[in-house]
Amino acid sequence: MFITFEGIDGSGKSTQARLLAEALRMGAQDVVLTREPGGSPGAEEIRRLVLEGDPDRWSAQTEILLFTAARRDHLEKTIAPALAAGRIVISDRFADSTRLYQGITRGDLRAQVDALHSLMIGREPDLTFIIDIDPAVGLARAFARNGTEERFEEMGEAMQHTMRAGFLALAAEFPARCVVIDGARAPEAVAADVLATARERLA
Amino acid sequence: MFITFEGIDGSGKSTQARLLAEALRMGAQDVVLTREPGGSPGAEEIRRLVLEGDPDRWSAQTEILLFTAARRDHLEKTIAPALAAGRIVISDRFADSTRLYQGITRGDLRAQVDALHSLMIGREPDLTFIIDIDPAVGLARAFARNGTEERFEEMGEAMQHTMRAGFLALAAEFPARCVVIDGARAPEAVAADVLATARERLA
Repeated sequence: MFITFEGIDGSGKSTQARLLAEALRMGAQDVVLTREPGGSPGAEEIRRLVLEGDPDRWSAQTEILLFTAARRDHLEKTIAPALAAGRIVISDRFADSTRLYQGITRGDLRAQVDALHSLMIGREPDLTFIIDIDPAVGLARAFARNGTEERFEEMGEAMQHTMRAGFLALAAEFPARCVVIDGARAPEAVAADVLATARERLA
Repeated sequence: MFITFEGIDGSGKSTQARLLAEALRMGAQDVVLTREPGGSPGAEEIRRLVLEGDPDRWSAQTEILLFTAARRDHLEKTIAPALAAGRIVISDRFADSTRLYQGITRGDLRAQVDALHSLMIGREPDLTFIIDIDPAVGLARAFARNGTEERFEEMGEAMQHTMRAGFLALAAEFPARCVVIDGARAPEAVAADVLATARERLA
């Protein structure tokens, strides 16, 4: 079972990914918790190449290729071997983030992102949690946390509204695997919803 | 006019690329001499990521994505602006090298390489010189030079025979842009053939 978490900055998706991993492990499940961009030594090197230095030095197309290279390495070295060994894989972000960040917000590149994904990745998650939140709340949380992915957080509230709408549209596009969770509640309440859905799908 | 040089290690393609650039400049042509992998600051960063460190840490597919990312940056930042300004661009290696090195010698990936090229690059050279040489001669030259691309040179003579056959097959596949030049002669003799062909095409 391959589970991913998606959502705008400050939605709480990373916290929820961790809480789900912890809850499943307490139930004696064998879980690998990973994240993108990165998730394998090679993919982490590519992540640094993209996220450090001047963010404007890569075009949207080059960035899509670099993130797809990182994803391919992550899939080959971390995700696929764990799934083959019967483990549950939980990833904080996966291809849906590229569909949104590079495919929509950096230009009308969604068709190119999808074609590249089909050609070089080909794998979709079995279950995707889209943690939904009002961008004003998400942005306040993200700033409070003072995280490292500032380039994305600096996109501002208008862009986050576009992103939120994009994630909700994605959930409508892939209803079999996507579940939208209301993230504007206490983390424990959100986590309870996530765990109930995950257990249902695992059963 | 976009001119590329291809060939196995030690074929003399880098020397010939440089000699053609010098000859055209003496004829008052405005020439940009570049190379792959690399050719722009971003592409050089990606080049280091692929060629430095353990070469086996990337799968053939990840390597194709990284080289295509580098090529996209090279095209956007170096090749396309120079061509738009009316300059002649000469590149030591381009997409044909990926068709051969990653597409054939690292597995039967040529179709994937071509699909990726169509999707993310889309540009072919106007003229490609394939400098042809017996691999035994080429390998002796390459070792004598003691270059930095040892990972490719370490592939050995059997692989270089496969590569030579692959480049000749490529020339047959793209006869409109590919010209095979006998590289087993003095550099000046090879350069004279190259210059004559380039002048003919430029006219």
